[in-house]
Amino acid sequence: MTLDEVVRQIQPVDQQSAAKAQARLDGLTKPLGSLGRLEETAVRYAAITGDVKPNVPRGVVFTFAADHGVAMEGVSAYPSEVTPQMVLNFLRGGAGVNVLARHAGVEVRVVDIGVAHDFAMVPGLIQKKVMRGTRNLRREPAMSRTEAAQALHIGIDLATQAACEGIGLIGTGEMGIGNTTPSAAITAVMTGRAVAEVTGRGTGIDEAGHANKIQVIQDALDRHRPDPADAVDVVAKVGGLEIAGLAGLILGAAAARVPVVLDGFIAGAAALIAVGIQPLCRDYLIASHRSVERGHQAILDHLGLTALLDLDLRLGEGTGACLGMGLVQASIKILTEMATFDEAGVSQRD
Amino acid sequence: MTLDEVVRQIQPVDQQSAAKAQARLDGLTKPLGSLGRLEETAVRYAAITGDVKPNVPRGVVFTFAADHGVAMEGVSAYPSEVTPQMVLNFLRGGAGVNVLARHAGVEVRVVDIGVAHDFAMVPGLIQKKVMRGTRNLRREPAMSRTEAAQALHIGIDLATQAACEGIGLIGTGEMGIGNTTPSAAITAVMTGRAVAEVTGRGTGIDEAGHANKIQVIQDALDRHRPDPADAVDVVAKVGGLEIAGLAGLILGAAAARVPVVLDGFIAGAAALIAVGIQPLCRDYLIASHRSVERGHQAILDHLGLTALLDLDLRLGEGTGACLGMGLVQASIKILTEMATFDEAGVSQRD
Repeated sequence: MTLDEVVRQIQPVDQQSAAKAQARLDGLTKPLGSLGRLEETAVRYAAITGDVKPNVPRGVVFTFAADHGVAMEGVSAYPSEVTPQMVLNFLRGGAGVNVLARHAGVEVRVVDIGVAHDFAMVPGLIQKKVMRGTRNLRREPAMSRTEAAQALHIGIDLATQAACEGIGLIGTGEMGIGNTTPSAAITAVMTGRAVAEVTGRGTGIDEAGHANKIQVIQDALDRHRPDPADAVDVVAKVGGLEIAGLAGLILGAAAARVPVVLDGFIAGAAALIAVGIQPLCRDYLIASHRSVERGHQAILDHLGLTALLDLDLRLGEGTGACLGMGLVQASIKILTEMATFDEAGVSQRD
Repeated sequence: MTLDEVVRQIQPVDQQSAAKAQARLDGLTKPLGSLGRLEETAVRYAAITGDVKPNVPRGVVFTFAADHGVAMEGVSAYPSEVTPQMVLNFLRGGAGVNVLARHAGVEVRVVDIGVAHDFAMVPGLIQKKVMRGTRNLRREPAMSRTEAAQALHIGIDLATQAACEGIGLIGTGEMGIGNTTPSAAITAVMTGRAVAEVTGRGTGIDEAGHANKIQVIQDALDRHRPDPADAVDVVAKVGGLEIAGLAGLILGAAAARVPVVLDGFIAGAAALIAVGIQPLCRDYLIASHRSVERGHQAILDHLGLTALLDLDLRLGEGTGACLGMGLVQASIKILTEMATFDEAGVSQRD
């Protein structure tokens, strides 16, 4: 499918199924609305999938890994070699996302979409490298438009394939030393906020490092002038390969009517790109958590999303998405497993 | 054990185990502190239990059910007959707490500590009825001091027994039409706040009902003048049997070094009583969620606790506690299942 075809395939979510799910929730043995955001989530799940009596879906969190030319500007507390090291950690099951995915009963799929390292044959790694990291966005566009489109398509294809396998819930994850820098750049462009307002400390840089990071991003925006009306232009010029891949994942999932559980800040930047390409995407998104990272709230506000969790997380990888997927599962069980007032012989309110 | 003996048995939590757990977390493959409140929770679990490499514990949520004489004052949107009806719903597995307990892999134990109904033989029900509901606290003390002590001891015994069975995580649940009224009364007394500040709409009363509820509570406090320095006096005069039972459960769990995951507002009122009896209890508590119910934040502030979740829940039963227990399990797995930088061969920060 071309990008245009995917975009056209995405439909508004199903309000009739949402209403039916709400009606069922209202008949369950609990005061009206007393399960709050869990009920809201169940209704959204029904609206996205059109399924009013869903089984708990198989879930997959896709963790896209890529490197960033801008890392050479000293924007991260960690060296770039950590990206491939963490990829191997994911494949061995020792990272945070692995632990929380097992806890939620979901699978982790690790995608090399642009790590600056040759993995050769590594069992379990989905090898889709577009290039060995982006270029340094302070000096030149991070990617060409063609490279960005390639990364978008990788995400679209992985989501489409997952939907064909019967995966009913997709989580977003990422790993890429330096990737809060392109994420903050995208956030500034797409939300219209000042760079300093949306640039945080990532994995933990100091005050001077933070000031430098803001300057790096400002230089990039001044040099490339990415067009917020053209999200592909934005992600190409100041984005990252894993961010473009996740944007594609969101588009592909929405086209297949599979709900997407967003992780934190980097996932949010990807969502800004996906929603920039096709605004209907927004209703296919569930925000798992609110990151500590400064720009995340601006993203959530711009997308009109409220996160389910606020646990001071700032790890990425898909860790928050896993916890959010657990809550989505819980919300589905509430919808389908609770007794109604009639079934349980419980009196309604006076 | 007498109440005094239980109180003396409760020790400060183990700061050395907390420090060891923190040191392990700091060596795991993630930026320092990047799993936020999950890390905090793992550290608290280690401090409470003294176990730095814990297995995921068996969990039980205790749902105490009782009726309230004050229900005759029109303080609830539901009739009192709903209390025994919901008890049967719990035993059949159709209530919200059953669904969320199954989701978290924890057991629900349902305790009749004071329902105004004779259940005869019902399989699975723990029959510990102190009396058929409290007296109308607007007119007379809800319980005698002896009755309150009896309810406290039932909770202590159940926690002690659970700990002997190897249960390592206890959640608090409750059911009792009218029970936000005694909970608000306790909150007003123990936190020193005005009644109107801590009195909410419970299951959903209207404006006039809310004004009446505030008046009922104010009348009770004016009449009985419960002594905030004597928590047993408070729970006897303006409390409820399930609240006293839960306060006992907390004391018994703390004495056995078993962490207690609090549900919402009513659990919070019980925690105020338990901490009033033995302030060291506080460090054995994990607040699962922040309830919609108005007075809950005042309780959390008073106890110095921050809830893990804020999902607009107001169902009770132990539903929020189940979700919180899931997060405690996740935090334990982070502590024990993640790879260290050394194990994974991942570079540390620059």
